[in-house]
Amino acid sequence: MKFILSAGLVLLFTFTAGADEGMWLFNQPPRVLLRERHQFDVTDAWLEHLQKSSVRFGSGGSGSFVSADGLLISNHHVAADALQKVSSREKNYLRDGFLARTLAEEIKCLDLEVNVLESIEDVTARINAAIPADAAPAAAFAARRQAIAAVEKESLERTGLRSDVVTLWQGGAYHLHRFKRYTDVRIVFAPEAQIAAFGGDAENFEFPRHCLDVCLFRVYENGQPVRLKHFLRFSATGAAAGELTFVSGHPGHTSRLLTVVELQSHRDAGLPFRLNQLKRSEVLLGNWSALNSENARRAKKSLNGTQNSRKALDGRLAGLLDPELMGAKARAEAELKAQFAAKPEAAAALAAYDQIAAATKTLQAQAIRHSLLEGGGGFSSDSFGIARTLLRAAAERPKPNGDRLREFSDSGKASLELALFSAKPIYPDLELLTLTDALTFMTGQLGTSDPLVQQILAGKSPRARAAELLTGTQVRDVAFRRRLYEGGAGAVAAANDPLIELARLVDGEARALRKVAEEQGEIKHQAHAAIARARNTVRGTAGYPDATFTLRLAFGKVEGFTTAGQTVPPWTTYGTLYEREREMQSRPPFDLPPLWEKRRSQLNQKTPFNFISTADIIGGNSGSPVVNRAGEFVGIIFDGNLESLPWDYAYSDREGRAVSVHSAAILESLKQVYGAKVLAQELLTGRRGS
Amino acid sequence: MKFILSAGLVLLFTFTAGADEGMWLFNQPPRVLLRERHQFDVTDAWLEHLQKSSVRFGSGGSGSFVSADGLLISNHHVAADALQKVSSREKNYLRDGFLARTLAEEIKCLDLEVNVLESIEDVTARINAAIPADAAPAAAFAARRQAIAAVEKESLERTGLRSDVVTLWQGGAYHLHRFKRYTDVRIVFAPEAQIAAFGGDAENFEFPRHCLDVCLFRVYENGQPVRLKHFLRFSATGAAAGELTFVSGHPGHTSRLLTVVELQSHRDAGLPFRLNQLKRSEVLLGNWSALNSENARRAKKSLNGTQNSRKALDGRLAGLLDPELMGAKARAEAELKAQFAAKPEAAAALAAYDQIAAATKTLQAQAIRHSLLEGGGGFSSDSFGIARTLLRAAAERPKPNGDRLREFSDSGKASLELALFSAKPIYPDLELLTLTDALTFMTGQLGTSDPLVQQILAGKSPRARAAELLTGTQVRDVAFRRRLYEGGAGAVAAANDPLIELARLVDGEARALRKVAEEQGEIKHQAHAAIARARNTVRGTAGYPDATFTLRLAFGKVEGFTTAGQTVPPWTTYGTLYEREREMQSRPPFDLPPLWEKRRSQLNQKTPFNFISTADIIGGNSGSPVVNRAGEFVGIIFDGNLESLPWDYAYSDREGRAVSVHSAAILESLKQVYGAKVLAQELLTGRRGS
Repeated sequence: MKFILSAGLVLLFTFTAGADEGMWLFNQPPRVLLRERHQFDVTDAWLEHLQKSSVRFGSGGSGSFVSADGLLISNHHVAADALQKVSSREKNYLRDGFLARTLAEEIKCLDLEVNVLESIEDVTARINAAIPADAAPAAAFAARRQAIAAVEKESLERTGLRSDVVTLWQGGAYHLHRFKRYTDVRIVFAPEAQIAAFGGDAENFEFPRHCLDVCLFRVYENGQPVRLKHFLRFSATGAAAGELTFVSGHPGHTSRLLTVVELQSHRDAGLPFRLNQLKRSEVLLGNWSALNSENARRAKKSLNGTQNSRKALDGRLAGLLDPELMGAKARAEAELKAQFAAKPEAAAALAAYDQIAAATKTLQAQAIRHSLLEGGGGFSSDSFGIARTLLRAAAERPKPNGDRLREFSDSGKASLELALFSAKPIYPDLELLTLTDALTFMTGQLGTSDPLVQQILAGKSPRARAAELLTGTQVRDVAFRRRLYEGGAGAVAAANDPLIELARLVDGEARALRKVAEEQGEIKHQAHAAIARARNTVRGTAGYPDATFTLRLAFGKVEGFTTAGQTVPPWTTYGTLYEREREMQSRPPFDLPPLWEKRRSQLNQKTPFNFISTADIIGGNSGSPVVNRAGEFVGIIFDGNLESLPWDYAYSDREGRAVSVHSAAILESLKQVYGAKVLAQELLTGRRGS
Repeated sequence: MKFILSAGLVLLFTFTAGADEGMWLFNQPPRVLLRERHQFDVTDAWLEHLQKSSVRFGSGGSGSFVSADGLLISNHHVAADALQKVSSREKNYLRDGFLARTLAEEIKCLDLEVNVLESIEDVTARINAAIPADAAPAAAFAARRQAIAAVEKESLERTGLRSDVVTLWQGGAYHLHRFKRYTDVRIVFAPEAQIAAFGGDAENFEFPRHCLDVCLFRVYENGQPVRLKHFLRFSATGAAAGELTFVSGHPGHTSRLLTVVELQSHRDAGLPFRLNQLKRSEVLLGNWSALNSENARRAKKSLNGTQNSRKALDGRLAGLLDPELMGAKARAEAELKAQFAAKPEAAAALAAYDQIAAATKTLQAQAIRHSLLEGGGGFSSDSFGIARTLLRAAAERPKPNGDRLREFSDSGKASLELALFSAKPIYPDLELLTLTDALTFMTGQLGTSDPLVQQILAGKSPRARAAELLTGTQVRDVAFRRRLYEGGAGAVAAANDPLIELARLVDGEARALRKVAEEQGEIKHQAHAAIARARNTVRGTAGYPDATFTLRLAFGKVEGFTTAGQTVPPWTTYGTLYEREREMQSRPPFDLPPLWEKRRSQLNQKTPFNFISTADIIGGNSGSPVVNRAGEFVGIIFDGNLESLPWDYAYSDREGRAVSVHSAAILESLKQVYGAKVLAQELLTGRRGS
């Protein structure tokens, strides 16, 4: 897991043609870089087709359309949220998989929203023009919020498209993204969890790897499969060694442009705290799951997510604790500051570092309280989330659109209501487990003598209090939610629901913490904008902004790597899958589904299964299509290796790699294991057969 | 897990005949209580026989002799340390079990020491007389240490017996315990881990339960099985429902006599910190174990121990967070203070509460640094422990006996050397894992800017530094250890071993932290002694002191309990074992060993397997014999239920129960499953057959 990244860091600030770095904006693609490094000319039509074939999952993750009849492919682990929600004690789709033989058999997801990016508009000037010069941070934040809400609402009303203003370069730019919104999404095919995540958490972030981490959905409109112009042609041969490939997806978050002080805060405070929470949660859910298979089913998605985050963040922290990485960051920042110092017009950028440092200090001082009270870490449960949404919706909706908390703006109303009125199952036993633990954790963090903690616990033990709250609340009843949401503040107060009243008790301080976070965030946005402007002047190019769960283009070659003297080839095959199973004596999580044992002889053992490339990705890219120069689907991203984890802070292609499922493996398994010939045919032809 | 303990708390301070509470000293047994409550007269001969049949494990835990030929029974989980150390990649005794058919086949433990308590002498007056009146805490501590060392050394030289002065009632009394020491201990029988810990961590601290948590050793002297006068006769019928039973063992630690301020410190600081460490460690070891079976084997004992501690401490913290428990504690303390206030001669006891509060504050302020640097939590690895022992032995051994750190006193020399020169396997890969993690954790706790942390890491990442230290050190070589230990400070310095030099780097601050802990400990000892004296005056009886890993007598009835309206019977049987296996579909940890599947029909399904009683026990009691009025072995303690976890702070027989393996189950499985008829015969007759 040694991570050398001097090379990556230099590239981060220069963008020479030396590495396949970058999560590029579709409206600012790396045309020159691709031409010079890979002799590839990006055309507008190629870009538009890829953009409109790419899909964002509201639940987190990416995907792409792969047939004209609305077939949508993503990862099994991206689909886990949807599979978990439609499962029951009797039908465990997340564990056992699913195949619809007909349209009628496809299973409608309960609350899944997917988005397709239709257009991007740079609205930086308009947003910034709304901020009065010399406005105090609070006023500036309010003005910016109003401007953003106005742009979004105007766009929604004019186009009918979901309209989000996204912040790029930590405040350096504001782009309006317009999305086609789909909410009728149905599950077509999911493999068994055993093969989707063969090797489980043990092999997560590892390579070599053997996972059929895919899931197929179909998107509907007006009760019919949607008819699409833009979708990716499936390549039967798939990616080849050394081939240039592209990744179009939604990397969730990176921290590459943060200042050294901000990174230190991640290293010394943010990551240790979060890892403490995650490991605690992993132990809690893991042990509860071990009690019986129904517990395991109920907690499965949360446990997987927790383990994944824990492993990712452990890797990131290891990166930040590596003096090589932090040393390179410090040197690069010193160099940039020296360049700024030489230019009088960059004075604001120089001063910006101190402003960021001060804001970071203020934020760090309240970070734990913020995470527990406003972030909800003190109340981990779906029920509390719903209770608070009901409380706040009642308070926010009567306000003018631009004055509301962002999640209650008019432009986000449809998505908010889809989530709030979801009929997803909520399990009181699991809620009791997590809420008790969260209250215990909060008490440990804030202290038993904290007045708010004492009010929250109301003289009871965490477990007794959690039981009382969850027994008394009605928020698990969707009709109750609708009644309160529509009834407004009066109905909410009259319900006298204990969980909503708890949310109310906490709301004063939670909002105060959020206000500080917003003001300090505004200071940071302005400061980072100043640095971005000066940096662009010095460099002569903007490069790409940090990831923000917006559509990005990455590229890279299919290529192995060498670590600790060992050469890791870029491929695995079905043959090596069975070898690995034997080597691990089929012990979970290295056991195969019965069907995979049974159909083994029918599978071409030479079929490429998983492969790696140098494409620059991160969490959120899961499910991103990998396409070749012709724009054909040759694979699907599902992971990065351990060595890629510090990519949050800096890219390096020395050992870091993106990990994908090969398109040929998908076709082969559909045909030979699952007998899903109709579906395989749809992938090959781009049209659904009858 | 609801825990009501008003009843228990009242008892704690009155010792009426209302409950089976108490971990009684063998030299102050509860004669009156047993006569009044259970119509049982404790005779001196009965007591002596039980005392001298009881065995303490140096590695932690209890046991008892069960034949005149040195057969020693304890729990599989107490034996885990010994089983782990004699196992290898080829032979996994901890997982697969073991049976010696002949004496020659018995496996000698690598570094196991067991002790039998031969005599107890109250030396309180002598120790306290050595402390000058009005001595400052540091001087008082030094004088006390000297007095204790002198008493121990004198006793060792006079009797040849291991001689330990133990502190009771938090400083209220000092007793000299003399032990017969055995270091040639051989493994005779261990069941498979699957049946020893059926249900694994999931069912740990639960009841109903189905564990054959036993292990048989034989103790040797001069190469021959030891011939014993005192051993427990094995009862073939075992414990019956409602029967009065006794437990003779070594409860490790309780906190029942702590002041409210001390309990608050546990609740608010000590337990949350320790749980953070434990959960982190559980995630680390669990995930590493999942990578392959050899990893799992290497980490097994540590992982089990970590899970066990985590579950126990979660339960204790839940107890302290229950306002009912803390409220009762506060009321009891207030009542006692009021009684003291009414007696002028108890003025010192009243003042003692403030002294304890001040000392607790001082200790809490340095607790994390102390735990990481002096406690070794920042360097978790066997290698570091050895390195520091070598460093400190060289510094301490030239000093007068009474001036040394306690672990280097003459009376403890033999035990220290047994551990230091143990040929137990140390795995560099596991050491790298835990040392890297510990350095990372310490960095998060103390901060990257801490000067000592920076010196410890020496400009490297935790992983790189750990790798460098473990590659460079020679402490895994026993001959190297001997050479340095015998060579003294000069040899240690000349070796220039990186891990020893790290221990040296840390030693200044570690010793300073320890000095503060010792001084504040002395203040607490004197203050608690004052409270104990006044309490005895007020009460008219001393009761029993908190557990300190010294031999104690507990008693209780075999009895079920009622929780949440459900009645839990006091028994399980082999029949319910197989039912539970079927119910859980044989999924690990609910799978049975192949032999148990094969021999199922030969086992009498009605054989009682595990049972519960109201005896007052805690961790350290594992392996304690359960005997009947006649002093016969009717079972063996291996656990308490979840409801017993807050017994650390207060006993209650409402739902809390001790959990034991029934003697009949042990005999039945030896005969019917393992074909160990000779061994079963030895248990029944008390003599080894030919």
